[in-house]
Amino acid sequence: MDNFVFDNATKIYFGKDQVKVLPTILENFGKNVLLVYGGGSIKRSGLYDTILELLNGYTIIECANVEPNPHHTTVQRGADLCKSHHIDVILAVGGGSVIDAAKVMGAGAFYDGPIWDMVVNPSLIKEVIPIVSVLTLSGTGSEMNRGSVITNTELNIKKGTGGQNSLPYASIIDPTYMMTLPPIQTAAGAIDAFSHAIENYFKADNDAFMQDALSEAVMKAVIKYAPIALKEPTNYQARANLAWASSLALNGLTGVGKPGPWAVHAIEHELSAYHDLTHGIGLGILIPVWLGFILEQELMPIFVRYGVNVWGINPNQDDSSIAYQAIDKTIEFFKSLNAPLTLTEVNIDSTHFAAMAKSAVKLGRLNQHLFPLDENDVMMILNQCL
Amino acid sequence: MDNFVFDNATKIYFGKDQVKVLPTILENFGKNVLLVYGGGSIKRSGLYDTILELLNGYTIIECANVEPNPHHTTVQRGADLCKSHHIDVILAVGGGSVIDAAKVMGAGAFYDGPIWDMVVNPSLIKEVIPIVSVLTLSGTGSEMNRGSVITNTELNIKKGTGGQNSLPYASIIDPTYMMTLPPIQTAAGAIDAFSHAIENYFKADNDAFMQDALSEAVMKAVIKYAPIALKEPTNYQARANLAWASSLALNGLTGVGKPGPWAVHAIEHELSAYHDLTHGIGLGILIPVWLGFILEQELMPIFVRYGVNVWGINPNQDDSSIAYQAIDKTIEFFKSLNAPLTLTEVNIDSTHFAAMAKSAVKLGRLNQHLFPLDENDVMMILNQCL
Repeated sequence: MDNFVFDNATKIYFGKDQVKVLPTILENFGKNVLLVYGGGSIKRSGLYDTILELLNGYTIIECANVEPNPHHTTVQRGADLCKSHHIDVILAVGGGSVIDAAKVMGAGAFYDGPIWDMVVNPSLIKEVIPIVSVLTLSGTGSEMNRGSVITNTELNIKKGTGGQNSLPYASIIDPTYMMTLPPIQTAAGAIDAFSHAIENYFKADNDAFMQDALSEAVMKAVIKYAPIALKEPTNYQARANLAWASSLALNGLTGVGKPGPWAVHAIEHELSAYHDLTHGIGLGILIPVWLGFILEQELMPIFVRYGVNVWGINPNQDDSSIAYQAIDKTIEFFKSLNAPLTLTEVNIDSTHFAAMAKSAVKLGRLNQHLFPLDENDVMMILNQCL
Repeated sequence: MDNFVFDNATKIYFGKDQVKVLPTILENFGKNVLLVYGGGSIKRSGLYDTILELLNGYTIIECANVEPNPHHTTVQRGADLCKSHHIDVILAVGGGSVIDAAKVMGAGAFYDGPIWDMVVNPSLIKEVIPIVSVLTLSGTGSEMNRGSVITNTELNIKKGTGGQNSLPYASIIDPTYMMTLPPIQTAAGAIDAFSHAIENYFKADNDAFMQDALSEAVMKAVIKYAPIALKEPTNYQARANLAWASSLALNGLTGVGKPGPWAVHAIEHELSAYHDLTHGIGLGILIPVWLGFILEQELMPIFVRYGVNVWGINPNQDDSSIAYQAIDKTIEFFKSLNAPLTLTEVNIDSTHFAAMAKSAVKLGRLNQHLFPLDENDVMMILNQCL
């Protein structure tokens, strides 16, 4: 286990009706609130009205229409609102895109240059307006970490950023908000959480026991509860366990003491930089192909552990057989969630693969992985995804 | 899963030589430091000198000789030092006893009455002087939670307390400090961590997946690494994994959303209120007997899960057989750590059992458990431990 710092102060208010604590949380700050949200599903669900009622007495400035894979222009708009309205606290109501965008808006309020600078160079992120989130879609883990992924559609770049002060002050996770999600969003969120565990799991430090056990637990929680949530959308326990597993998948605990880049995310970011693709869906297409590609002798012990501990495969078989069964089970599982399994199904062809491969290796430092990937490797993976 | 709040902001600096960050941590506070420690092992190991050197320029006031099962009189002494020396930050260097004591000293600095009041009535704990800990013995988890257990030897009461502000600001966990521990301390710390997982695990909420998986991971980490640490005391990976498992066992994650009292701890607190008994050793004696006592039909599913998931028992057997094997394996494991398995071995007889049983049920609210225990039950458990 490598040395590490674990530092995660986000206060989690988990469960039904926890939104009622909002006034108690926000009273720690001033009266000017930037309310950040997406396409309006919170208006249809009634959550918008509930929040406005709870925040009676506050001055609410709205920053709506944050898109999936949030654009830097949207973040710029939010940062400008923070400045012009002297915002004291940002309330992000939505999924990972909304929370990601809100974090960088809060940083941009303290920066005079264009917001994209802070994505290119995260060290420009210093002070951040306090962020409070109300999560409506689990998966990204953004409610309990410092990261944001922002897309520049002009440059076709989707890139992560974040600073020490980007962590949400508090997040409200009410599983009932997820009961009305479209099935494909439930599936995408589940695959996203699964992917965070798998990226940390395949970093291969055999002596990071708790980290790996937690990754396995996240994957097993997704395997158990995602199908229930799809079959019975209002099953509270399924929604609750999916949500809590998603938060724990990316709050630092699965990754501390195990350094290394995240290959699948780096490649997926390229796909959705060029195409309007749901992040979790892109991950689901890439993961099985990537697993097949890195299935080499050196990583075999992790594949065997993955197969036995996560998928319950009988350990009394040769390693290679266990590994292939594990990959097959991964594919079958994503398929059972009705997730697309090829890029062709989501209308992505090979047009931009070369540029994507180049950028993925560079931005994701994929050549530094335990199993390093170069541009040709990424091209092969992308082509296999067609 | 019940609604919960998870709120744990302790910054963990984990790994070899992390003590070097101390000046960077302490510069957030003033110059007056109360250095709290135990019997002097930190002087023998050289850690004391290292810390004084790192804190050159600070005014260090010492509060030494904090005993295992720290006494309220010691805590009072520390609180008085905080007041008389205008202490800005408390640096607790030691195991759980030292950190437990430091937290209540820091609270006592803001209270004019006798310190024992704040143990009897935790709601009296409001402001707390910031606590920074350097952990030298893993097990209690005190480095990453709000709790303290303080003993009043005049009244023969050992009781938990803690407030919202009792959480350490930061904790340094360097596994190399644990390489020189006496074997019985390593064993006691390991059993303590195991016990925290098992107390939360046997609360029986079948839909707290991540919590239970984390408890299982803690127990499996202890089962894997404690024997290695005993056989090879300087094995870094064994010490590191034991340490991190111990912190995660009691930082809130294994218990959130699963309410209920902790039966074994309540009974053990009585044993060490009356006798000079190492907490982890008392727990190791009690756990197997308690498990046998609560082995009823209602809890059978948890026993089966415990046997299969934690001990790797073949699931294709009748439930009762799995449960008994699981208890046997627990006993064998504690025995393999050379932990005493009876109260007789640690020179405790039945003299105070009646008073202990009465107090345990009252302070531990044991009659509110899923499997409620009354005074007679506790008496039976204690007698079986002889």
